[in-house]
Amino acid sequence: MPPRSPLAPTTIPDLPPIAGVRVGAVNCGIRYKGRDDLFMAELDPGTTVAGVFTRSQTASAPVLWCRRALSHGKARAIVANSGNSNAFTGARGDRTVAATVAKAAELLGCSEDEIFVASTGVIGEPFDHEKIPAALPALRDGLRPEAWSTAAAAILTTDTFPKVATRKARIGAAEVTINGIAKGSGMIAPDMATMFAFVFTDANIPAGVLQVLLNRSADRSFNCTTVDSDTSTSDTVILCATGQAAHRAVESSTEPALREFRRALDSICLDLAHQIVRDGEGATKFVTIEVTGATSARAAKRIGLAVANSPLVKTAIAGEDANWGRIVMAVGKSGEKADRDRLAISVGGVQITKDGQLVEGYDETPVAAHMKGQEIRIGVDLGLGRGRATVWTCDLTHGYIDINGSYRS
Amino acid sequence: MPPRSPLAPTTIPDLPPIAGVRVGAVNCGIRYKGRDDLFMAELDPGTTVAGVFTRSQTASAPVLWCRRALSHGKARAIVANSGNSNAFTGARGDRTVAATVAKAAELLGCSEDEIFVASTGVIGEPFDHEKIPAALPALRDGLRPEAWSTAAAAILTTDTFPKVATRKARIGAAEVTINGIAKGSGMIAPDMATMFAFVFTDANIPAGVLQVLLNRSADRSFNCTTVDSDTSTSDTVILCATGQAAHRAVESSTEPALREFRRALDSICLDLAHQIVRDGEGATKFVTIEVTGATSARAAKRIGLAVANSPLVKTAIAGEDANWGRIVMAVGKSGEKADRDRLAISVGGVQITKDGQLVEGYDETPVAAHMKGQEIRIGVDLGLGRGRATVWTCDLTHGYIDINGSYRS
Repeated sequence: MPPRSPLAPTTIPDLPPIAGVRVGAVNCGIRYKGRDDLFMAELDPGTTVAGVFTRSQTASAPVLWCRRALSHGKARAIVANSGNSNAFTGARGDRTVAATVAKAAELLGCSEDEIFVASTGVIGEPFDHEKIPAALPALRDGLRPEAWSTAAAAILTTDTFPKVATRKARIGAAEVTINGIAKGSGMIAPDMATMFAFVFTDANIPAGVLQVLLNRSADRSFNCTTVDSDTSTSDTVILCATGQAAHRAVESSTEPALREFRRALDSICLDLAHQIVRDGEGATKFVTIEVTGATSARAAKRIGLAVANSPLVKTAIAGEDANWGRIVMAVGKSGEKADRDRLAISVGGVQITKDGQLVEGYDETPVAAHMKGQEIRIGVDLGLGRGRATVWTCDLTHGYIDINGSYRS
Repeated sequence: MPPRSPLAPTTIPDLPPIAGVRVGAVNCGIRYKGRDDLFMAELDPGTTVAGVFTRSQTASAPVLWCRRALSHGKARAIVANSGNSNAFTGARGDRTVAATVAKAAELLGCSEDEIFVASTGVIGEPFDHEKIPAALPALRDGLRPEAWSTAAAAILTTDTFPKVATRKARIGAAEVTINGIAKGSGMIAPDMATMFAFVFTDANIPAGVLQVLLNRSADRSFNCTTVDSDTSTSDTVILCATGQAAHRAVESSTEPALREFRRALDSICLDLAHQIVRDGEGATKFVTIEVTGATSARAAKRIGLAVANSPLVKTAIAGEDANWGRIVMAVGKSGEKADRDRLAISVGGVQITKDGQLVEGYDETPVAAHMKGQEIRIGVDLGLGRGRATVWTCDLTHGYIDINGSYRS
């Protein structure tokens, strides 16, 4: 693995067991040597599932499978490999998924549509469709309730640290746990779902409700982040609820009993999404962009993403240059309504422009000091309405070019 | 000026005089020392004009002025400076334009709305509004019909070479000349107009017809190029026709007599647009992306631009890696209809995938050799319809990061 991102969290939490979930990983020899590349989570019967997937028109074979399987709302296993995305592999790719799903269903004695699959890595190179099925029996035998760190490591590709998070929440009489693991570092763009994140809970929540909760959380977290504006063919977020917690069954996503759970799910998704940005390829700065005063929340998000995806803004941040003129440019190109004479921009909490002009007596000293830090905050106020959004990104550095000029070789 | 782009043209044509046009440049001290930074073209009475401008919502003060002035369809002068874009400078920026336009109109004895202005450089820093007017009298006295190379150099910013082109065309009994000069290297994105290009001809064409011709040419040239997906606040293309050529007046953009002129205008716009891409910040490869078989021409262009703007495709090209999986990814994220099982991709004329899979017995050797060259050709066939488009871009290199991490400092 390359050196850890300078933005990596300083401590990695221990994930507690979740009733009804066993996880683990092995090496099945697709691409990597000397590290695990195949992850499995086994889920007790009765587990409900929700998912959010890439909106790419060239989605991978595993994503196509999951979209279909999701309609049944039940899950007994997730099988995910790193090193090859099984995307753009045509009928051969579909056969690889079919062989994996058939073997896993046979091992667990369940229906094939209760098996969810995910693949990440190189696009367009077929791989031996027997490798994953052959590794499954031993992998399943080794699954354990507490093997979260092994599991989180197996799904990484260009990542420099494993991404895990855990939360507790009360639902009625019971305390439930939510664990999440994720991967992602490049080819990260929002608004079309995201990368890999697998989230597990023992809460007792039907699939339909779970899906509403996940859509909402993903939209405020994964879908508000970007590393490089490039959307993966393999983006997959899956949330599984084993239903083993001792609270009465939930019937609607708006029940007051779910308030704490919703908040915890939002929080875990945001935590994992931020970890992915903090591991953005070549990243040296974590950037928060808060947009206010837009004509709508949707407009605010588009403006935020236009700033977050601008190569000129991102390289200026890498160069520690408070080049706010480029922020103006990015707001202007977003296509959303803006009024030059109302636009206000701040960096690091310092107001730079107001009413479309440089603030009288603007002193760049505190802003320049802020730009030298690792956590950059940009504020954009359109002065037009009440639409607001926050998006997150990282800077664009020589490291990104190094990593991506030579990924396949 | 930084070292010339490796993709720069090996020869620079001499531009002939055009009846009714005098050009020149001086230093007016806005930002640069030891080089000209103020360009002027004086046009004889009777000159018609057409323009295409940035669609940015935060357009510069000069762009706002030109959009208004254009409705009169007549031009007596273009005044353009480099070093400061006069964008996001509020009422002070408007005053700078007003002072420039007033002084130029006084010198030429014409109406203010016959003066067109353009500014390029840093965004958001007001500059002394007297500098340009003070320099105009001496600048005007020095204008000459043949000073094209002086003129072309004065409008450059991060460019590494001046961009000029010339064409001849017959209209009826007369041979007319078209000269064009342009600037642009970064903050180059299409579909919202472009950078600076000033094009001059002695043809006798009314403003309405000229505008139709320019829209068409710009749409197939400047609007089909991208360096970094970032759209400038100052993009300006102006086409002036002095009407001094000896052909009968033109009445419609579809007249057969204009066929050769249309072709020459297309050609000069494309030539200038390609020169801008060849001077893309940090560029080492010139990339042509031909999209065919899309559901419409518009879809083909969006798909082509999704490939051209993908940081992962651009860094792979910089790394001389024929990573066609990233091309699949970019097609998929464009939002346009694609069918995995019909998509065909070629690089350097070598078919890599067909019917959604790697071509049987694909040999990467000739493709790898092509990637080592300076001229990269990518073909994407969707297999869905008859929509086609060609777009042009450059690679994304360490040079881009170097240039843009330190532009202001």
